[in-house]
Amino acid sequence: MAITKQDISEAHARIAPYIHRTHVLTSDSINEMYGCKFYFKCENFQKIGAFKIRGGMNASLQLASSILEKGLATHSSGNHAQAIALAAKLLGTRAYIVMPDNSPAVKVNAVKGYGAEITFCEPTLQAREDTMEKVIRRTGAEFIHPFNDERIVAGQATAAKELIEEVKDLEVIIAPVGGGGLLSGTSLSAKYFGNNIKVYAGEPEGAADAVLSYKSGKIESAPYIKTIADGLLTTLGDITLGIIRENVSEIFTVTEEEIIKAMRLVYERMKIVIEPSSAVPLAAIIKHADRFKGKRIGVIISGGNVDLSSFRDWF
Amino acid sequence: MAITKQDISEAHARIAPYIHRTHVLTSDSINEMYGCKFYFKCENFQKIGAFKIRGGMNASLQLASSILEKGLATHSSGNHAQAIALAAKLLGTRAYIVMPDNSPAVKVNAVKGYGAEITFCEPTLQAREDTMEKVIRRTGAEFIHPFNDERIVAGQATAAKELIEEVKDLEVIIAPVGGGGLLSGTSLSAKYFGNNIKVYAGEPEGAADAVLSYKSGKIESAPYIKTIADGLLTTLGDITLGIIRENVSEIFTVTEEEIIKAMRLVYERMKIVIEPSSAVPLAAIIKHADRFKGKRIGVIISGGNVDLSSFRDWF
Repeated sequence: MAITKQDISEAHARIAPYIHRTHVLTSDSINEMYGCKFYFKCENFQKIGAFKIRGGMNASLQLASSILEKGLATHSSGNHAQAIALAAKLLGTRAYIVMPDNSPAVKVNAVKGYGAEITFCEPTLQAREDTMEKVIRRTGAEFIHPFNDERIVAGQATAAKELIEEVKDLEVIIAPVGGGGLLSGTSLSAKYFGNNIKVYAGEPEGAADAVLSYKSGKIESAPYIKTIADGLLTTLGDITLGIIRENVSEIFTVTEEEIIKAMRLVYERMKIVIEPSSAVPLAAIIKHADRFKGKRIGVIISGGNVDLSSFRDWF
Repeated sequence: MAITKQDISEAHARIAPYIHRTHVLTSDSINEMYGCKFYFKCENFQKIGAFKIRGGMNASLQLASSILEKGLATHSSGNHAQAIALAAKLLGTRAYIVMPDNSPAVKVNAVKGYGAEITFCEPTLQAREDTMEKVIRRTGAEFIHPFNDERIVAGQATAAKELIEEVKDLEVIIAPVGGGGLLSGTSLSAKYFGNNIKVYAGEPEGAADAVLSYKSGKIESAPYIKTIADGLLTTLGDITLGIIRENVSEIFTVTEEEIIKAMRLVYERMKIVIEPSSAVPLAAIIKHADRFKGKRIGVIISGGNVDLSSFRDWF
């Protein structure tokens, strides 16, 4: 079942009362440095500090009340956990979150702050899934996947939809790619609401699975995992892979040094706090600046949830 | 000569083509924590990363062309230096900046980046003034004081004017106080454009001169100087002191720990980069939260120019 233009428009109307329409920022100095016109869609200013609340709300709001009342469930150590926790709170139900027992305290506390019940597990995918299954069996809560779900993709698509509505004549949009929910949604909004916008993605070399999957058409693993962009570690799902192969022009990989350089630029010039994953698209454009000279480029800043003690590792 | 409502309106019209009308941000979570409604006027997003360009442009734009063509001059290690450097660049003239030779490289480079000529001196006020005098004698450039100048005050007042225009029914505005250009301008805009808005200031305990001057009516020195809020080290001038005594309700002092706590809150919850001076007003409100419960409070975020390597000292 393909995601239609109407699906995204309906998702947007559905979630609008619960989300921020985030600011689009520009930077004269970054524009001058690279000869492009950048428009940064600041989902770091979104509720929970990241775009994930868009998909989480869109999925949750479509559940029948008999399902919703049993609660929402997911396993995540990142922003999707916060999204589901807040969605449950806003809709007056429970959230059951499975988190690896090595999750940073700041993320655990954020999820707790929304009143979610946390079950800790060992930090392996197997342990996560086993624990999740037990929690669901006990509670009857509805599992909401972080990205491989059309309701999630349609929700994440609304960030690019807003950007396209606000900034006329965009020629390029670039997003980071982890599980591909944001990227696939972005590519659909570009197709449906834009005028011949090309969509690109940035991916860390140290989590370069999407670029391989994009070429082979199968879900591949990354050759190695080593990146500060901790939101981009996941592999694609079949739904996101299909959309991305059809609608994304190219996936660029960037090194850790390139990620930190782009992140530093955003902190210093734009005065905003972003998480490392959010610097990956800008790093990709900077790496290929010659190809993008003079273009009007939308950049999805996916989130700003960082542990401030990490600054000493980066800057 | 008093600064009138018309002076501020004219300043605003004069500088509008050269400055950003900066965003006003809100934070549900900070509002919930303290039971207030905060509206943050984000001058960290302003050109040069701080409000100072407002005053700098307003003063420069009123110079006769015969004066302007000889250039602009000031001594500053901070944001005013960047403001004068950029004003000169935008108006097609030269800037001559005297900076102490222990200024951080990041600030020197920012001023150089606008094409200003920098003369270094020893880091004492005497050396600054002597060096400045020599530069002015050599060049004939016009000296522009960082705060004790009515054109500067009228320019800085435009930040609060914009905030009042955008956010209806503000009851309180709070700004940081160093030399008092921003605070005195803010208090005038509150009086002229607001509806019974009370204006407060935040000052570091480790640079607590304004609170003393406010009481005595004379320009006092701080009992001791020790603060990370490096934009607030200066004492008031006679012009700013007079306006502040007439129009500001109270000056609150805050400790270094309170500044860092407020700064951390802004980074974590609002996802913006601010300089320590900008955290001082929020720290003051937090300290006296009981007095401000339920109020609609405008907070002037004065700037975001930080050396990212300082993060490791703060967080």
